[in-house]
Amino acid sequence: MKIDMTYGSGGKQTGDLINQVFLKHFNNPILNKLEDSAVLSVSGTIAYTTDSFVVTPLFFKGGNIGKLAVCGTVNDLSMMGAIPKYLTAGFIIEEGADLEMVESIAKTMALTAKEAGVFIVAGDTKVVEGNGGIFINTSGIGEIIKGDISISGCKQGDVIILSGNLGDHHAAILSERMGIENEIASDCAPLHTIAKNLLDDGIEVHCMRDVTRGGLATVLNEAADQSGVSVEIWEDAIPVSREVKGFCDILGLDPLYMANEGKMIAIVKETDANEALEAVKRSPYGANARIIGTIQEGKGVRMKTKLMGSRTIDVLYGEGLPRIC
Amino acid sequence: MKIDMTYGSGGKQTGDLINQVFLKHFNNPILNKLEDSAVLSVSGTIAYTTDSFVVTPLFFKGGNIGKLAVCGTVNDLSMMGAIPKYLTAGFIIEEGADLEMVESIAKTMALTAKEAGVFIVAGDTKVVEGNGGIFINTSGIGEIIKGDISISGCKQGDVIILSGNLGDHHAAILSERMGIENEIASDCAPLHTIAKNLLDDGIEVHCMRDVTRGGLATVLNEAADQSGVSVEIWEDAIPVSREVKGFCDILGLDPLYMANEGKMIAIVKETDANEALEAVKRSPYGANARIIGTIQEGKGVRMKTKLMGSRTIDVLYGEGLPRIC
Repeated sequence: MKIDMTYGSGGKQTGDLINQVFLKHFNNPILNKLEDSAVLSVSGTIAYTTDSFVVTPLFFKGGNIGKLAVCGTVNDLSMMGAIPKYLTAGFIIEEGADLEMVESIAKTMALTAKEAGVFIVAGDTKVVEGNGGIFINTSGIGEIIKGDISISGCKQGDVIILSGNLGDHHAAILSERMGIENEIASDCAPLHTIAKNLLDDGIEVHCMRDVTRGGLATVLNEAADQSGVSVEIWEDAIPVSREVKGFCDILGLDPLYMANEGKMIAIVKETDANEALEAVKRSPYGANARIIGTIQEGKGVRMKTKLMGSRTIDVLYGEGLPRIC
Repeated sequence: MKIDMTYGSGGKQTGDLINQVFLKHFNNPILNKLEDSAVLSVSGTIAYTTDSFVVTPLFFKGGNIGKLAVCGTVNDLSMMGAIPKYLTAGFIIEEGADLEMVESIAKTMALTAKEAGVFIVAGDTKVVEGNGGIFINTSGIGEIIKGDISISGCKQGDVIILSGNLGDHHAAILSERMGIENEIASDCAPLHTIAKNLLDDGIEVHCMRDVTRGGLATVLNEAADQSGVSVEIWEDAIPVSREVKGFCDILGLDPLYMANEGKMIAIVKETDANEALEAVKRSPYGANARIIGTIQEGKGVRMKTKLMGSRTIDVLYGEGLPRIC
């Protein structure tokens, strides 16, 4: 069945869509009350964030827009040293979208939320003209367990850990769009366990960031700027799968600027580096983690190349890949 | 200047847009940190909600999409007996949108947030193909000061107060679309003061709801359903401005099904009715408030007509006016 403009009216059809799709899958006592707002008990200091998702195609190897929408917000909360607790979900559906497709996306969101230990407690649905697409906004609340983790917290001597291979999400989306058949799947995943492992092990974590739009290059530049330090990374140490490397070589792409949806960096005290690496590797999503560089005095990001040269790594200029997340 | 896909890349241009437009206007110490999440101290029980806004045209008499996006979420929080505190804002901008237009919307959001006493503490920007439009999602957190207000809390004998004239927002949007020149302006407004007046005065409020998409008819049906009661309203008592009444007569519209963006109902204990009406009227946005009906045993919504007949008022079927908010 196709969704038409009546489903966005706020009347009978909107109610049916909410009941038959969203409440059915997101089902929990808070959401089910259908009040104007969810009512929650939270304690202490919270992390609060939002992200919109506009990826095309909606379904790709390794996930779909719904999985992205839950992971993206769960990860933003986790990176602040918070345990993700509650999400909201706002759907903007284009006329002509398949009801079954929307339900399949909602089902994935429910499964991913379960894995990440969060409840979807409030939602909203709008319908607009278009070609059957869907945009999803999620916001999220988490309870902070370690409060001083910050993009401005990097200190000279710190060690940078990357949780795994770069470029998988970007390469998977681009492959779908170009109709290239390969085995590359998006790395889209919730990173709450990696973050929690680090904190549970008492690692002195100074900064965590998920490596999404703009790629590792952009994230590291933000860290250098905000912390007033320079970053050195080692080309040899940065993990990229053989398939993605081949894909990049053919298309002239640089994994440093490619988007990921299940990768993070943790910038930790030098003496905690090896313990931190072990903590990250305990999660299946961190199995291929590496120490990739250090924080130094100065400014900007530099990479020691395989040939022992050194080059400046700037932020992403231009468009990268549009609608990557 | 026109916004193109590079502004959604997560790189340099996204950063410029955030700095030059959003940080400039939303400017506050929490947002300015630009972490993956905002860090907040909240206490006790909170209300948490989300809403997406897709209204066309983006600018209309009485407001724009940015004013709607702040008021909508502020109102959803206020209706739960909460003091609105923090908002997030997610922008999905269509390619070709004017940077000046986006800035003008952001400016209105900042002004409205100031009026409502809330801070915009986290945001996100995406760019998609299209014709220069914009979608905005807001989520919000409020601190609950009276915890038992609920759409399922209406009790037999309760009195229903409507905060003012019906239909203004709907008629204003429709006038813009049809190119009809008239004086009708959207009623778009934050309702936090009306809600707070009621609670400050110690009124026994059982239910509050803003009267948006689906109109008064749909809201009252939800209250009747969820509370297991019936609703009686009095046609004579329902305020509609002369301009909107004329507009409705010509186009065959029923104000009961028209969307509002600055109107609410409060369902209160019978003996508190007159005090409650005074509390609502103390806010300029409630100056034309009326007692419009009562809660009774039974089910459904009935209206006593001007001719002393009675008719059943059902929820909105069909599309109402698409993209009204």
